[in-house]
Amino acid sequence: MRVLIVHAHPEPRSFCAALKDAAIETLRENGDEVLVSDLYAMRWKAVADAADFESRADPGFLKIQAEQRHAHETRSFSPDIEAEMEKLLWAEALILNFPMWWQGLPAILKGWIDRVFALGFSYGGGRWFDTAPLRGRRAMLTLTCGGLADRFTDEALFGDIERILHPLRVGTLNFVGLDTVEPFVAWAAASVSAERRDQYLGEYRERLRGLASAPLQPFRELAAYPDPLSRDH
Amino acid sequence: MRVLIVHAHPEPRSFCAALKDAAIETLRENGDEVLVSDLYAMRWKAVADAADFESRADPGFLKIQAEQRHAHETRSFSPDIEAEMEKLLWAEALILNFPMWWQGLPAILKGWIDRVFALGFSYGGGRWFDTAPLRGRRAMLTLTCGGLADRFTDEALFGDIERILHPLRVGTLNFVGLDTVEPFVAWAAASVSAERRDQYLGEYRERLRGLASAPLQPFRELAAYPDPLSRDH
Repeated sequence: MRVLIVHAHPEPRSFCAALKDAAIETLRENGDEVLVSDLYAMRWKAVADAADFESRADPGFLKIQAEQRHAHETRSFSPDIEAEMEKLLWAEALILNFPMWWQGLPAILKGWIDRVFALGFSYGGGRWFDTAPLRGRRAMLTLTCGGLADRFTDEALFGDIERILHPLRVGTLNFVGLDTVEPFVAWAAASVSAERRDQYLGEYRERLRGLASAPLQPFRELAAYPDPLSRDH
Repeated sequence: MRVLIVHAHPEPRSFCAALKDAAIETLRENGDEVLVSDLYAMRWKAVADAADFESRADPGFLKIQAEQRHAHETRSFSPDIEAEMEKLLWAEALILNFPMWWQGLPAILKGWIDRVFALGFSYGGGRWFDTAPLRGRRAMLTLTCGGLADRFTDEALFGDIERILHPLRVGTLNFVGLDTVEPFVAWAAASVSAERRDQYLGEYRERLRGLASAPLQPFRELAAYPDPLSRDH
């Protein structure tokens, strides 16, 4: 497979970076091709703004989605966005590799989504979920997490991890057509023993070797929902 | 009340900005004091990194939470973070005013959370949820949204809006001790009529006049969860 890893941790010697490095090595050993967008190393611009567009549909009023549609039609995204879009189109699988901060993506990675999953490019004109342009590719969330797994169940303090990842899995990845496999979560990565962390790496390598054939999580098909294309997007 | 509005939209003439302006006006008419952090106008730095800290616990290894704890103890956060912390300590209510992008916060606002809700300042050392330093203050989410409300129910395509906002309400706002009132959502703000948008503004002004006495959403008290302080934070 052709795999794009988008990595978002500021410390190259962090365990989160070790997961990224293990993925690169394991996938290449497996015969897969790998590209990495190391967002901190790239000094990725997190904030969607006027500089994202080399020509404007309306220079006097900045509506990001409208400008994204225009930039898609006129191929006038800024070069940093264009480069990430090329990688996404190349990839058969996308791995988002990040520390869970505030039960979501670090801002730099949220900004990658905000800017790269642009209207026109990844959805729009009735193309979303099963009709989206990136449909058929797979995605995996690989995350480190401050707490142990027992904090993340329906009965526990934070609620189920699936509930926490729902906006990202359904509202973001499925939205642009990506199928998801079960996320890989390194629970309490910062506080477990070095042995446990090594074990995480071993488990992760195993997951990666099976990435192409891993079972897919449920995907919301538009046909299951009434009147899906009559409004929005 | 003393109210801090954190606003995250790049276009000053957007409907999202109109909500922010309506809030400033209504609250002041109501006798409340208002401060605004207009993140795009401030060119807020979204990305948590080494520049957040004027002195370092470990200059050789960047672990954001550990450096936040150190910066809190030594009062060495960068001035932009320090200024936002001062505003938070001043405020009795916090309003996050934003367009929902990818079912979450725009990166610039996620980065405000990542950097300002710092370990030591807003949680840590056994202080979280009902023992957190900001406990007793209230918070409200004010958001514009691309779709109509009927997309956001348990049976609908995206799932219930409460499910989508769960990581933000429980895992972020409650986590640092903030009580939440019902969010204000301007559904399909970009596609409804001008009359409907005016109606949203009227409804929002009404909500704001009742902010101090609005019913609170359920809050997860630590005592309801087994062994809450034995691990983490």
